[in-house]
Amino acid sequence: MNNQVKFLLQESDIPQTWYNIAADLHQAPAPVLHPGTHQPITPADLAPLFPEAIIAQEVSRERHIAIPEPVRDIYKQWRPSPLFRARRLERALDTPARIYYKYEGVSPAGSHKPNSAIAQAYYNKVEGVKLLVTETGAGQWGSSLAMACNFFGLACKIFMVRVSYNQKPYRRALMETFGATVSASPSNETAVGCAMLSKDPDSSGSLGMAISEAVEIAAQNPDAKYALGSVLNHVLLHQTVIGQEALKQLEMAGDTADVIVACTGGGSNFAGIAFPFIGQVLRGERTGLRVVAVEPAACPSITRGHYAYDYGDTAHLTPLTKMHTLGSTFVPPGFHAGGLRYHGMAPLVSQVVAEGLAEATTVAQLESFTAGVQFARAEGIVPAPEANHAVAGAIREALRCKEEGVSRSILVNISGHGHFDMQAYTDFMAGKLTNYEYPAEEIAMALAGLPKF
Amino acid sequence: MNNQVKFLLQESDIPQTWYNIAADLHQAPAPVLHPGTHQPITPADLAPLFPEAIIAQEVSRERHIAIPEPVRDIYKQWRPSPLFRARRLERALDTPARIYYKYEGVSPAGSHKPNSAIAQAYYNKVEGVKLLVTETGAGQWGSSLAMACNFFGLACKIFMVRVSYNQKPYRRALMETFGATVSASPSNETAVGCAMLSKDPDSSGSLGMAISEAVEIAAQNPDAKYALGSVLNHVLLHQTVIGQEALKQLEMAGDTADVIVACTGGGSNFAGIAFPFIGQVLRGERTGLRVVAVEPAACPSITRGHYAYDYGDTAHLTPLTKMHTLGSTFVPPGFHAGGLRYHGMAPLVSQVVAEGLAEATTVAQLESFTAGVQFARAEGIVPAPEANHAVAGAIREALRCKEEGVSRSILVNISGHGHFDMQAYTDFMAGKLTNYEYPAEEIAMALAGLPKF
Repeated sequence: MNNQVKFLLQESDIPQTWYNIAADLHQAPAPVLHPGTHQPITPADLAPLFPEAIIAQEVSRERHIAIPEPVRDIYKQWRPSPLFRARRLERALDTPARIYYKYEGVSPAGSHKPNSAIAQAYYNKVEGVKLLVTETGAGQWGSSLAMACNFFGLACKIFMVRVSYNQKPYRRALMETFGATVSASPSNETAVGCAMLSKDPDSSGSLGMAISEAVEIAAQNPDAKYALGSVLNHVLLHQTVIGQEALKQLEMAGDTADVIVACTGGGSNFAGIAFPFIGQVLRGERTGLRVVAVEPAACPSITRGHYAYDYGDTAHLTPLTKMHTLGSTFVPPGFHAGGLRYHGMAPLVSQVVAEGLAEATTVAQLESFTAGVQFARAEGIVPAPEANHAVAGAIREALRCKEEGVSRSILVNISGHGHFDMQAYTDFMAGKLTNYEYPAEEIAMALAGLPKF
Repeated sequence: MNNQVKFLLQESDIPQTWYNIAADLHQAPAPVLHPGTHQPITPADLAPLFPEAIIAQEVSRERHIAIPEPVRDIYKQWRPSPLFRARRLERALDTPARIYYKYEGVSPAGSHKPNSAIAQAYYNKVEGVKLLVTETGAGQWGSSLAMACNFFGLACKIFMVRVSYNQKPYRRALMETFGATVSASPSNETAVGCAMLSKDPDSSGSLGMAISEAVEIAAQNPDAKYALGSVLNHVLLHQTVIGQEALKQLEMAGDTADVIVACTGGGSNFAGIAFPFIGQVLRGERTGLRVVAVEPAACPSITRGHYAYDYGDTAHLTPLTKMHTLGSTFVPPGFHAGGLRYHGMAPLVSQVVAEGLAEATTVAQLESFTAGVQFARAEGIVPAPEANHAVAGAIREALRCKEEGVSRSILVNISGHGHFDMQAYTDFMAGKLTNYEYPAEEIAMALAGLPKF
């Protein structure tokens, strides 16, 4: 038996360019609309929030966008990330499937998020920005941006969703160790935060609220810009190093991907691994690829939301994008996969699903942790709660292979490790976790409030 | 400027053999003595505790001992571990020194400990053992053995020093996620634990006490053996993959090590990185190497202890070894580097110091955390509190280079990441940590109780 389990690339295999799926999609991406006028926005509208280079990437239709050398230099610290064959998990499942996992938990912040954080900090630094303001849910993005800002000598201010701020003090400590300032959101530091608190002083917060606060601060400070960790085109673009590396690594393994599985919150780790493969399909270079987005059952924007124009935040300070959404006023229940608690889906991911290039499914909290513990015992890596959804999806696919008696190659993205999420594992093992019921009424209300035009 | 920061090896570069320094030392290692008779022990004396293969390694004088393929196969998951050039730290320190760090935090358990845990679990499995019993301080060893046992289908029982059991619930959760059973030590599950609790019901425990409990359980159960995460010759042997890889990586960098720095608790990560280099000195293949062991100021076994025969545990169930010791009844204060809270030093490390091949120094808690935060901000990696001692030692060496205006190559071992130690970082940043005073009186008392013969 070939026991090779890790497929190692060289530094020279770190991609030279990011892959922009907008160049290959059947249809042009729907325009982004101004929150005030509902007309397509111009680069000038975005200038208070983002540096020019980022705005150019946001609207680019170029297939390949060069990765600046200073960014690649920092990528070298943990990239190329490893691709593993999960032989022990395959044995535990007694499946004929070939399971490969790309492991992004090797980054210093423990997830895929630095792939974009480093790039965003770099472009902001080049254009003279002094302070980056952002929001974070579980803290994966916040800690990655805090690290990246620190490397480039930028200050960093982070609004952390209050429920995570309280549940995950160690993720906050990591951001502070990197020198960032962290506030629980909603806070009384912004007008929108004060308004939210006056409506609900005990608000547990949401990504939508925290985005509103960060955008408000960034827009008011000429030395500051805003940074987002998912959803937007440029963020997804930066993550495509994952899939480009995985393509090479599967080739090294003498294999290809029949099924790709990743979890989706805002969509960035999903896009990162899947878009380079979907690009091959779009260009007619391959067929027979299934791509599965795994959503949390309690916040299923693709499977239960509308594909419509909506705001990215609660206070409606952001532009409107066409995406799968549960409604911007929807506050997802407090399940442990904080990175998946977002009402919308990245427009490019939404479009990929709409064009029939990917499908979506849901996994409830208990199935996700059951899968995570099984994965940890087999492979030694404890995935983050977000990644547990992907693992659960991959296990379902592997068991389907067993039922059908076929060997398919399943590629799953383990977007981060769970070392900062051990309270969730403790609660799960103590039988204290539950499946959140699908919040049908709240979602119906939020969907009824979608902007109409 | 050459910006290369990471020196990547191939899987084929994982060493085929472990390096046994006992083959090269000037003098034969002092014999290990039976705790009852004070006569040199025989392999038969150790048979209740260890499998034959481990006992053979413990007393071997062979220079190279083959690494079994099933062990190398699992090493492949994270080995070869990366060697980094700390260019950003060098710039922050404005030093002419060339600082390299070997990073063992990439293992799934987050430290160097799996290097031995995998090997020990393998040998026990081959000899039909069903249950491994061990102790753990900070939990790095316990989580590594829990993972390793799980891979080989062994049960695992862990006595965790009570102060860590309470301070580090997430490290415990990690062990339990891997399927191990964890008890706070002293416990009422053993005779020695009951005796300790009857003397001091509020005992915060110590590694010495936890070892006594684990040994008692293992010795009584014919299907069980005992496993130790440091101190013993075979454990140090398994860790030499670190230094062997670093030798190749420095060669790849076109450099060599002038100074090697590592922290010492029991001595295993220090030995792992330093012994292959010291072996070159012993065999006359190189000169001009300084090797620095960094001890916690509040538990400085090499710098303030006696080099004498002592027990490895509090209850005197273990054999006696000749080592630097503060006395087996000494209970170190509760500083955060739990992995360094041990009264003794590995006999082979002690002998290396005694033969003039290495020196030792001490670092207090605040200096260690100051160094850790500086390292994290420069390099993005948050070291474990134990490793912060090594970082502090390396920074001292780098600043000495600056003072003297010379460029030396400093190789430091970052034995693990600090993701499970963020409470310590939180406390440090809040100004709540202190330097523990050197416990002179307690140590004098413990030293006065050293066995006399």
